[in-house]
Amino acid sequence: MTQALTVSLGDRSYPIYFTGSKNALAATITALRESGKSLRAIADQGALNTQPDFLRKAGFQEDEILVLPAGETTKSIDHFAQVLSFLAKGSINRDGSLFAFGGGVTGDLAGFTAASYLRGIDFYQIPTTLLSMVDSSVGGKTGINLPEGKNMVGAFWQPKAVFIETALLTTLLDREFSAGMAEVIKYGLLADNLLFKKLEELDQLKADSPELIEIVRQCCALKAMIVADDEKETASSGGRALLNLGHTFAHAIENAAGYGDYLHGEAVAIGLNLATQLSVELGQLEGNAVDRVSNVLKKYDLPIILKQPLDTNALIDAMGRDKKNRLGQLRFVTMTEIGKAVTTEEVDLELIQKLLKHVGAAS
Amino acid sequence: MTQALTVSLGDRSYPIYFTGSKNALAATITALRESGKSLRAIADQGALNTQPDFLRKAGFQEDEILVLPAGETTKSIDHFAQVLSFLAKGSINRDGSLFAFGGGVTGDLAGFTAASYLRGIDFYQIPTTLLSMVDSSVGGKTGINLPEGKNMVGAFWQPKAVFIETALLTTLLDREFSAGMAEVIKYGLLADNLLFKKLEELDQLKADSPELIEIVRQCCALKAMIVADDEKETASSGGRALLNLGHTFAHAIENAAGYGDYLHGEAVAIGLNLATQLSVELGQLEGNAVDRVSNVLKKYDLPIILKQPLDTNALIDAMGRDKKNRLGQLRFVTMTEIGKAVTTEEVDLELIQKLLKHVGAAS
Repeated sequence: MTQALTVSLGDRSYPIYFTGSKNALAATITALRESGKSLRAIADQGALNTQPDFLRKAGFQEDEILVLPAGETTKSIDHFAQVLSFLAKGSINRDGSLFAFGGGVTGDLAGFTAASYLRGIDFYQIPTTLLSMVDSSVGGKTGINLPEGKNMVGAFWQPKAVFIETALLTTLLDREFSAGMAEVIKYGLLADNLLFKKLEELDQLKADSPELIEIVRQCCALKAMIVADDEKETASSGGRALLNLGHTFAHAIENAAGYGDYLHGEAVAIGLNLATQLSVELGQLEGNAVDRVSNVLKKYDLPIILKQPLDTNALIDAMGRDKKNRLGQLRFVTMTEIGKAVTTEEVDLELIQKLLKHVGAAS
Repeated sequence: MTQALTVSLGDRSYPIYFTGSKNALAATITALRESGKSLRAIADQGALNTQPDFLRKAGFQEDEILVLPAGETTKSIDHFAQVLSFLAKGSINRDGSLFAFGGGVTGDLAGFTAASYLRGIDFYQIPTTLLSMVDSSVGGKTGINLPEGKNMVGAFWQPKAVFIETALLTTLLDREFSAGMAEVIKYGLLADNLLFKKLEELDQLKADSPELIEIVRQCCALKAMIVADDEKETASSGGRALLNLGHTFAHAIENAAGYGDYLHGEAVAIGLNLATQLSVELGQLEGNAVDRVSNVLKKYDLPIILKQPLDTNALIDAMGRDKKNRLGQLRFVTMTEIGKAVTTEEVDLELIQKLLKHVGAAS
């Protein structure tokens, strides 16, 4: 059994449990019930299809579970309203707890709902995708999308615990697994040169690769450290914003393409390629990094250029709406070496346009 | 000019400015613009009708203002979505500010929207009703309603400043002014015996009564003190929950009657009568308090019994959903003397039913 981690945030600190965590989960549920607290779960339809018994075995009853459609469009105001009503109809009070069983969409929606219902109830994450295990389930950023942009509505709301069961990944589609690897690669690029080298050396990892669990744990440890230092992303430079390596580009791609064309990790892969190229163009990073990053992305069948042309101006406009920007200025995360990221402001817009065209954007 | 107050909450402390505050407001807006920040305001249609020039004179441009219909039904998920889109369409970033011009509905909706948009932007309160001046504009409780109950969704999100201009009250309908007085009376009952005695002695106050501004300031000072001690209402007894004197009943009445039949303050008035009767029945309070409280409420033409019968069980059910309750137990605020409130648990349900019937509930 892989050792648990702690996200250190004072009285809001919480544990991340790894494989073998079904015991931790069942124990948590039993303890909540014994103290008279009400439980509810929201579950992704796709996760339930492949893991129909998981929640029941963990201790949930059928009527405590709300099933939501798979896909990014579930991160909407309408589904937010649906989950709120599910809690209200169950007369869940301030001592209630909400569990999320699914990927990032489920966790982000559950987290924002838990943050808002009665001005805040407890919530717990049971991520079922690689992407959500290494990224969105840890750190307390919750939210939903607007037609105008991704994650534009939300709250900082930390879970009470995260349960990571990599056995759940064996039923994940290859495409989803690869999308998760984009975020794993991101951690290597932004904070861990050795992790990136390991990803270069290893054959393509699979859900049942023995190396996977330690790599997932390493990603969670990196994220926990960064979040503990800058929980609400208020550092004037560096800090939590570094986790957005590739993401200003990725959000713009997802927004311009319409949600659904790209898995988030696929857009991140193109974004990582772009961020690497930007770092080289700015003279911050050695030129061979572009090939090294592309090769690892391609090892996981991830895209490094746009699948079909998107309008360059539409992409730039979407970046302007991205919440990572301050006072209207575009802000990028770049690398000074592989394993070391920095925040960079005052990037020439023409350079960004050139790079976007380089990966297939239309003028 | 009445002296400003401070709500003391560490680095989230903020000022409440009183009459003459138009200068403070204009100065704030000028300073925000000079530092390059974007501004938006949401305004209640009713407040705009009677004060068409206020926001423009304070420095807002027409296209920075979103007008919303008057009334409690505006505190909905749909209007939350509408304000979010208004901000997103204006490309408001994390440095943007949202102003609320209206009563409690406008302030609560604006606050929750500001708390959630990009996971939190600044907001400012310009209350236009007596009720919102003395209550909802101060203290950071923001939220919207669900069909299942009032204020069931929200966030703790403190404003950056509150601007109280009692001159705005001269155009307020008498019924609205009286509803605000219900909350003023509440402050006397829960924390200030001298304030209550003053309300007994004075003739009916009007918007232009010279005594009004000091009474409003006294209510804000009491609320600021209570909020500073127990911001998130986590005290195991007493604390911020005391501000809910009469409100468990009031929310149940509003919920059972459907929003719109009662102004919030009118439901609070009946709730204060019920809370006084409950305190007497429990042996906590002298019997003559019932007449004293009723007489002050009636001085302001406030109801002390239901306007038409509501189903007793529907009222009890609505109380069970009220967020003020913990672990499913009904929790009431009662008085041990006029000017001193306490939280009380384990109240006999039959006693509540009896009191509800006493004010006109149907069995």
